[in-house]
Amino acid sequence: MATAATVLGASASGAPSAPDQTPRAVRPYPMIERNDVILFQGDSITDAGRSREESDSPNNVGGMGRGYAALIAWQLLAERAGEGLKCHNRGVSGNKVPQLAARWQEDCIDLKPNVLSILIGVNDIWHKLGGNCDGTLEVYQKGYLDLIERTRRDLPQVKLVICEPFVLRCGAVDEKWFPEFDGYRAAAKKVAETFRAAFVPFQSAFDKAARKASPDYWAGDGVHPTMAGCHLMAQTWLRTVNAAKVKGGGAVR
Amino acid sequence: MATAATVLGASASGAPSAPDQTPRAVRPYPMIERNDVILFQGDSITDAGRSREESDSPNNVGGMGRGYAALIAWQLLAERAGEGLKCHNRGVSGNKVPQLAARWQEDCIDLKPNVLSILIGVNDIWHKLGGNCDGTLEVYQKGYLDLIERTRRDLPQVKLVICEPFVLRCGAVDEKWFPEFDGYRAAAKKVAETFRAAFVPFQSAFDKAARKASPDYWAGDGVHPTMAGCHLMAQTWLRTVNAAKVKGGGAVR
Repeated sequence: MATAATVLGASASGAPSAPDQTPRAVRPYPMIERNDVILFQGDSITDAGRSREESDSPNNVGGMGRGYAALIAWQLLAERAGEGLKCHNRGVSGNKVPQLAARWQEDCIDLKPNVLSILIGVNDIWHKLGGNCDGTLEVYQKGYLDLIERTRRDLPQVKLVICEPFVLRCGAVDEKWFPEFDGYRAAAKKVAETFRAAFVPFQSAFDKAARKASPDYWAGDGVHPTMAGCHLMAQTWLRTVNAAKVKGGGAVR
Repeated sequence: MATAATVLGASASGAPSAPDQTPRAVRPYPMIERNDVILFQGDSITDAGRSREESDSPNNVGGMGRGYAALIAWQLLAERAGEGLKCHNRGVSGNKVPQLAARWQEDCIDLKPNVLSILIGVNDIWHKLGGNCDGTLEVYQKGYLDLIERTRRDLPQVKLVICEPFVLRCGAVDEKWFPEFDGYRAAAKKVAETFRAAFVPFQSAFDKAARKASPDYWAGDGVHPTMAGCHLMAQTWLRTVNAAKVKGGGAVR
């Protein structure tokens, strides 16, 4: 993936520059176009303590929170400087798919995103395991598919990024979560495939990282990422989006 | 510079891996050693809204603020996962060299940093231009040299990173700042050379970036970086530290 240095140092003419014959840097994240509005949606992992008062204006460091969404915005705005990108965060702690649906008009459709990134699912199973809701995997999958179908109808040109729900095996996450949690991951992947969205494989990224440092290094309670975990998420998202060939006007069921 | 992906994907055996013959990834930031305490010191650009209540414990997302220091910590903790690095932020808005000196025992020496990064100087000239202090370039340079000499005496093994003060030509920054401001940059460089510190060339990084997008895209008021500006700073710092050959036990005047 191109770094800020690569991009900022790119030759405008495209000619190889002596003495290192550096090739012309490829413009990163080609699915993101000039002046795109980029919206991050989800639960507490996306919310990450964002200031509600500072969320109205895009690219606001307070409004973007202190998690992966902010890190992505920081990097996108630097690597695609001067292109008019507008990043918004509307993650809300505790949300499951039904809560997203209830605030979707105001917190998604009305913002007219060109790129919509969603990470949702961990509360859908967590709250059920805790006896705080009666959701099932089927409720999650149907609700998620319905939400994206509605989004595609209202915003036919929206480019979608569906993020895989993930957990680390530590903290609040014990064996009771499995294998059911794998079904939630599969359901998110089915949503991505149904609507030809980019799919961000967070679980495999964390599984790989957990071989380098203990699971709680990446997410203390197994659910909410640490600073290192947020960086890993942002880099995984950026790498996925950099490679994705996603266009607006995709499939509706 | 190695990315998280490079490092996380490094072959533990060091053997070239077929089919792409990827060489063993070089461990990034070699001047930073296992279990190092890394301290960021400075003014509002470093402070960046950090929570005082959350600043006592290292690697705390609230305590690290929302600026370049947090971005560096995020990336270091991911790319050097499981190595026990401890990042602290003790930047304080409005500080000049004398204010750093007044709180140095508590906010630097007592933390026993192995790596100390300092960005100070813009207020030393700004407050003088505004008639709010009577500092001069000579006061800045002598105070800065004295501060680092004291640091080297109390912490002989500390590895130093001196950051170049920078401004963008917009907002509060007008022609009255020049050429005097160039003297403050030169003074910081002299401090770095005197004590064989890594020197982070922020001004040239911003000058180059300002050819890609307008100065206020990187720092609205010419002094405080935007999200894009913070990302640029973090990448410039990391690239400098990655290449630096800095050891403890260096020169004392």
